[in-house]
Amino acid sequence: MSLSTSTAPSRDDCRTLDAADPLALFRERFVLEDGVIYLDGNSLGALPVATAERLGQVVGDEWGRGLIRSWNAAGWMDQPGRVGDKIAALIGAGPGEVVAADSTSVNIFKALTAALQLNPGRRVLLSERGSFPTDIYMMQGLETLLDGRVAARFVDPDEVLGALDDDVAVLLLTHVHYKSGRIWDMAGVTRAAHDAGALVIWDLSHSAGALPVDLNGAEADFAVGCGYKYLNGGPGAPAFIFVAGRHQAGAPPALSGWLGHGDPFAFDDRYWPAAGIERYRCGTPGVLAMAALEVGVDLMAEADMTALRAKSGRLGDLFLALVDDLCAGHGFSPACPREAAERGSQVSLHHEQGYAIMQALIADGVIGDFRAPDILRFGFAPLYVRYVDVYDAVAKLAAIMREGAWERPEFQVRQAVT
Amino acid sequence: MSLSTSTAPSRDDCRTLDAADPLALFRERFVLEDGVIYLDGNSLGALPVATAERLGQVVGDEWGRGLIRSWNAAGWMDQPGRVGDKIAALIGAGPGEVVAADSTSVNIFKALTAALQLNPGRRVLLSERGSFPTDIYMMQGLETLLDGRVAARFVDPDEVLGALDDDVAVLLLTHVHYKSGRIWDMAGVTRAAHDAGALVIWDLSHSAGALPVDLNGAEADFAVGCGYKYLNGGPGAPAFIFVAGRHQAGAPPALSGWLGHGDPFAFDDRYWPAAGIERYRCGTPGVLAMAALEVGVDLMAEADMTALRAKSGRLGDLFLALVDDLCAGHGFSPACPREAAERGSQVSLHHEQGYAIMQALIADGVIGDFRAPDILRFGFAPLYVRYVDVYDAVAKLAAIMREGAWERPEFQVRQAVT
Repeated sequence: MSLSTSTAPSRDDCRTLDAADPLALFRERFVLEDGVIYLDGNSLGALPVATAERLGQVVGDEWGRGLIRSWNAAGWMDQPGRVGDKIAALIGAGPGEVVAADSTSVNIFKALTAALQLNPGRRVLLSERGSFPTDIYMMQGLETLLDGRVAARFVDPDEVLGALDDDVAVLLLTHVHYKSGRIWDMAGVTRAAHDAGALVIWDLSHSAGALPVDLNGAEADFAVGCGYKYLNGGPGAPAFIFVAGRHQAGAPPALSGWLGHGDPFAFDDRYWPAAGIERYRCGTPGVLAMAALEVGVDLMAEADMTALRAKSGRLGDLFLALVDDLCAGHGFSPACPREAAERGSQVSLHHEQGYAIMQALIADGVIGDFRAPDILRFGFAPLYVRYVDVYDAVAKLAAIMREGAWERPEFQVRQAVT
Repeated sequence: MSLSTSTAPSRDDCRTLDAADPLALFRERFVLEDGVIYLDGNSLGALPVATAERLGQVVGDEWGRGLIRSWNAAGWMDQPGRVGDKIAALIGAGPGEVVAADSTSVNIFKALTAALQLNPGRRVLLSERGSFPTDIYMMQGLETLLDGRVAARFVDPDEVLGALDDDVAVLLLTHVHYKSGRIWDMAGVTRAAHDAGALVIWDLSHSAGALPVDLNGAEADFAVGCGYKYLNGGPGAPAFIFVAGRHQAGAPPALSGWLGHGDPFAFDDRYWPAAGIERYRCGTPGVLAMAALEVGVDLMAEADMTALRAKSGRLGDLFLALVDDLCAGHGFSPACPREAAERGSQVSLHHEQGYAIMQALIADGVIGDFRAPDILRFGFAPLYVRYVDVYDAVAKLAAIMREGAWERPEFQVRQAVT
């Protein structure tokens, strides 16, 4: 990254931008400690203020006092569908097309196996190299399980469209890449896949709550995504799965758990799936975690997605401009698109000392994360990240580089989660 | 059930039994409302007093303040294995043989697919008719997915051992039957299955925390179980899976999620499983729900399992004796073994008006549940159910039958969860 000749915004400029931010009031709805600049909401979203009280109610009133009666009286049984419908509204899906359930990994398995049923003559599961590992790994696990009946194939990103031959049953792509933030053209890729006779699964883990998504506008087939990133549902929150209404009847779930049954309390010895999206529920839903997720989703539903997307792009642009300006000559280069329209709500930088630099930043109160082998990743959750936070974060990064603080031994030691 | 000639204990006798109960002090550790007699801990365990505070810490301190750092700093990443080890101690398993993860349904799928890998020449998945539906349904889903490579076979309980022919890869049984409470002889059945070349999966949903289980004493292969029944982990708590240490290396998981990978933060494009039980984790663990589960498991670990089992049997015997005595002539007949040694921690009764009678009981503060077509089910969680509760419950049941209260129209209307 070369020294920029343009003048990057000053801290005062950033304060002016914050004063004019239509989303500014959302920040008060989150618990955020003084002295911490949180740029990792793309990995674990911040805690909504309302979550603790809501969880207290669910635990004390619904579980403690209501006990088993709360499955009906407190609506626990309908919660996965209700939360699913709320998520649907954020991603361009209709009511009855999304259910909150299980983990993203397990939902990928559901979507892959459903797609194979809908496209029985074909045997290839296609994705891109370097996609989020769980997408790749779930494909590989299914390939092993089906032992020759299907093949998982991985190609470079620019080869994906060309690889859509007449043996591809399903294409699985992460809409926003977890490292680079690069956005796939959902409508265009879906169209190309359909033209080639393939179905598509979109992993929305870095999209839902981060940018406008229009699944039905793109005629998407399947999607999965994560509740604990931009949806602020809490660590390990339930994930979600979208199955287009037109596909549901033709794809009984391979993970055919009792709560996806058409009449679970008949205790019938024969599995027959529920009529709609409920068939993808599988086991008993995690009520406590789902309640926390619902708070996050409700909060996100209040935000204007267009304003959110606009701010997200500006925060990333600001970050890159400030790095150009304040960190010039320190060996950073962008690992994400320069153009905001091509990026999700994150920015990433290459640096050969990326791990140690991120540890030094975290120790200084700027929380981003590191992704092997050399990527510093910064997420900008527009509901609670301010322009001034971006300024301060890059100023601290510049100071760390100037002073060589990252060279301290304690910043070299790798931890379990990086 | 005929009129008993023996004299059933009086309410005063029950108070005397409670006064001498070595487990009596555990009751204070649970939130239990006055006026409610909770006999459904076999479906959803009661709320431990400690849970609300612990969840408050996890939400406020670990998520709210610690944010992403808590994956390391608060031990979130180790939590599934740590909770798994604690559950292992309750079910006769060793450290590193149990992990808390996903739902029971999903864990059944993991165990079935692992067993098939370990027994590749065989194609039958065997279980009993009338087993808990999710066990049956997951087998049927896998049969459909593998499309002819395996066959799910269901036989009557007394035909199970005879059906262990040389094509049976794996036998899946619920250790304690969810309706009848009947206990399978874990060691004997496991031995018979091994002699026939089959592996066994034990579903411990109604066993873990309810009675002594000795998986390794029985040379068990796999087990799964539920966190929200006798372990008091909260509605939809994470489940667990046991894989005998000797089997782990030979059975890579079909649900090969990123947190079961040998080095998840290497973000490698190739799946290779973690060395031990961690390979069965699959996706990101549900930290909030897991924290609640850990409170329940810790509390259970304080109890003496021998005393717990003895009390459990006495509570059930007392219930049956009181029904004989106080409800004679009202059309009840036992749907569970008379002998405490043959029953789990529950009692069930047939009655053709079972649904309405249970609704009337619940309206009167005695919470049990109904299982189609005609079973009233009463669970006795010995940590918080008293002898006097059993007395009062049967006295109320007798009054409902005497007065015909169950005939009221509001008790005839079926609800979603029964």
